[in-house]
Amino acid sequence: MNTSIGIGVLGAGTVGGTLITRLVEDRAAIAAKTGLDLRVLRVGVRDLGKERSFSLEYGSVTGDLQSIVDDPDIDLVVELMGGRELAGDLVLAALEAGKPVVTANKELVASRGPELIAAAERSGVPLLFEAAVGGGIPIIRPLSETLAGEPIDRVLGIVNGTTNFILTRMADDGADYADALAEAQELGYAEPDPTADVSGADAAAKAAILASLAFGTWVGIDDVYHEGIETLSPIDMAFAADFGYVVKLVGIAERTGGGVSTRVHPVMIPTAHPLASIRGATNAIFIEGPSVGELLFAGPGAGGDPTATAVLGDVIDAARETLAGAQVSSRIRFSPGELVPFGDVPTKWYLRLEVDDQPGVLAQVASAFGDAGVSIKSVWQEGEGSEALLLIVTHRAPEAAQRAAVDHLRKVKPLRNVASIIRVESEEP
Amino acid sequence: MNTSIGIGVLGAGTVGGTLITRLVEDRAAIAAKTGLDLRVLRVGVRDLGKERSFSLEYGSVTGDLQSIVDDPDIDLVVELMGGRELAGDLVLAALEAGKPVVTANKELVASRGPELIAAAERSGVPLLFEAAVGGGIPIIRPLSETLAGEPIDRVLGIVNGTTNFILTRMADDGADYADALAEAQELGYAEPDPTADVSGADAAAKAAILASLAFGTWVGIDDVYHEGIETLSPIDMAFAADFGYVVKLVGIAERTGGGVSTRVHPVMIPTAHPLASIRGATNAIFIEGPSVGELLFAGPGAGGDPTATAVLGDVIDAARETLAGAQVSSRIRFSPGELVPFGDVPTKWYLRLEVDDQPGVLAQVASAFGDAGVSIKSVWQEGEGSEALLLIVTHRAPEAAQRAAVDHLRKVKPLRNVASIIRVESEEP
Repeated sequence: MNTSIGIGVLGAGTVGGTLITRLVEDRAAIAAKTGLDLRVLRVGVRDLGKERSFSLEYGSVTGDLQSIVDDPDIDLVVELMGGRELAGDLVLAALEAGKPVVTANKELVASRGPELIAAAERSGVPLLFEAAVGGGIPIIRPLSETLAGEPIDRVLGIVNGTTNFILTRMADDGADYADALAEAQELGYAEPDPTADVSGADAAAKAAILASLAFGTWVGIDDVYHEGIETLSPIDMAFAADFGYVVKLVGIAERTGGGVSTRVHPVMIPTAHPLASIRGATNAIFIEGPSVGELLFAGPGAGGDPTATAVLGDVIDAARETLAGAQVSSRIRFSPGELVPFGDVPTKWYLRLEVDDQPGVLAQVASAFGDAGVSIKSVWQEGEGSEALLLIVTHRAPEAAQRAAVDHLRKVKPLRNVASIIRVESEEP
Repeated sequence: MNTSIGIGVLGAGTVGGTLITRLVEDRAAIAAKTGLDLRVLRVGVRDLGKERSFSLEYGSVTGDLQSIVDDPDIDLVVELMGGRELAGDLVLAALEAGKPVVTANKELVASRGPELIAAAERSGVPLLFEAAVGGGIPIIRPLSETLAGEPIDRVLGIVNGTTNFILTRMADDGADYADALAEAQELGYAEPDPTADVSGADAAAKAAILASLAFGTWVGIDDVYHEGIETLSPIDMAFAADFGYVVKLVGIAERTGGGVSTRVHPVMIPTAHPLASIRGATNAIFIEGPSVGELLFAGPGAGGDPTATAVLGDVIDAARETLAGAQVSSRIRFSPGELVPFGDVPTKWYLRLEVDDQPGVLAQVASAFGDAGVSIKSVWQEGEGSEALLLIVTHRAPEAAQRAAVDHLRKVKPLRNVASIIRVESEEP
């Protein structure tokens, strides 16, 4: 039986370069373990000469990306170039030509998933993207296969290593945001332009994919509300610790009010929660279901080596299916389902208010919440006089009501500033 | 396209009963999410009338197990009856008849794996056993698929919930072994005859499967050294805590000395290690690899619901492959590899010695270790006179040398008893 698979790789940056090197260097070991002879025949890059260095046993590097997809010797395409447009068109062309595709491109999957999955289904070839979420952590396959029969309730994920590194530094050492970011940049955990990470946009794409797989209802990247960590202050980390919480940037996908809500924002989670102990650049995904209970998956969320491992696993799986000659039916099907607007989702808030500590201030603050239909769980005053802080934790109420309460608050005279708002995840109402 | 799959279930105990109920009750929901119409057509039990109660939409319950395997309407066989002989022969017959098999039977896979995998390979049908290790935790598929290209260094697993529950009670509350076991039995975490769990035999079967998949070298159940928790004392849990460790029953599979070592025994692990915080009946598997770094998978290790979830995921996967008409090539291949005898594996020991505290005793004890080529890392004396205890932690040395040291120790006159021995996992030599 012919066990040879010709591979074309689009993109040769950190992950692509690592993948190519491993496919070439470990070719014999992979063949021994899997029975597959995986040959990288062509590598395509947008800017010739800017690729990472690697050596090919066969084949060549080209700037003509389409020619790789069209090459009859290429049995399988790996897309690691990123972006929605060009990458998406090449992936689509490959699938339409009946070639299996492996991609690590979260943005592409979260924006054009249904279109690509439909194309894969029509051609009967696999489209795999294990590396798109959680880097080296196997999560896509468990969600879409092992848990295919489980009506999952909720997925919580720390899916961005950069922000978790920054938040860990802020919580442990009281570093402020700017210093922790600068350190992350020095260590290579954050990009020179960190916007995609710190704004929550990167996590939003991953949360969209997790939600879509968990609930079988398509959630696109633009359906995910996201909020970043830029305005968090170490003082709130310290108060969170006093109250028994840790602040994390969490992607939340849950069934609520007859539909699905997906969002990314900073969250105070109880220190006893499994996600609270996830430190530094590590990622973790926590899944709750009625039968399976609670599952935790943790590991390195980024980096060339772990991500290339996940891509390689997909390449091996796709190659196996290709050689089996199967008319592969997609593992993922979407049924229509309601996406619940964030305003309707019950949330619980922590607020740090800067107030002038004068008689009656608390009554006015309490009315602002009461008028919006939000009830207060606890109030804590720190400091005195014009330096006073009110730390408020509310009971659960619709997000829109919480926001209305803040609008009312801004009209309270002795209130100088709503200094910070962090949502709270806890078992309590 | 016909999407209907006729399912025969062998065994209708806790897991089988739960699976059948979910297949029947969630049939429409599963069809919506996966496009598969899964129909339980026949259920076979060894002792008719002793099965759990469930209702079938189609089909019937029989005591004639072979007739289910032979039934032409049965497209897929699920084996949940346990045991090696009868279960194994039925699984083999199903595979030889070209029917995919899903099993949760760790003992069967760990004892007759290569024979069954070869039969599946000849027939080109899948043999899946996600539920055999870690209950509802997806671990088989990540190991054999996502990590197929990773040269894994080591797998550490808390893979028996009964013993982890007992050890957690002993560590937290100073309960002694018998009381903690009795409590586990009352709560249904331990069987009336707990031998398979507390002796480490159950964990050994799971460790064998993990090792085989991680290293691609077949490790059978009888190749795994195992030691149980029956002799552990709460006093050692307390000393472990003083030294910064937690005692866990761990399955260890690692590359060492050019081969593979697989074993199950109590281990002191540092409190900062991710496995140290796994409490109660929860299971967890920790994987280390050169590219992927460290991965942790945690969740419910047993119970009808979580285990049935994993079986159901396999059923969906196998049904999909069957309908795709693929000649499935096994995901698992074994190459010859050396199994390193436990005596040759470097281990690090903690010993609690009961001694008469007389001049020269420490010198004699130290000589016993020295003569065996084992060097001592630390000695701690507790108590005085005839009540004295020596707590010794050694440096790493071959297991055989550690055992030789104990043989020497037993000749030391002032030594009254080697009260306990627990191996230590740490980064230090």
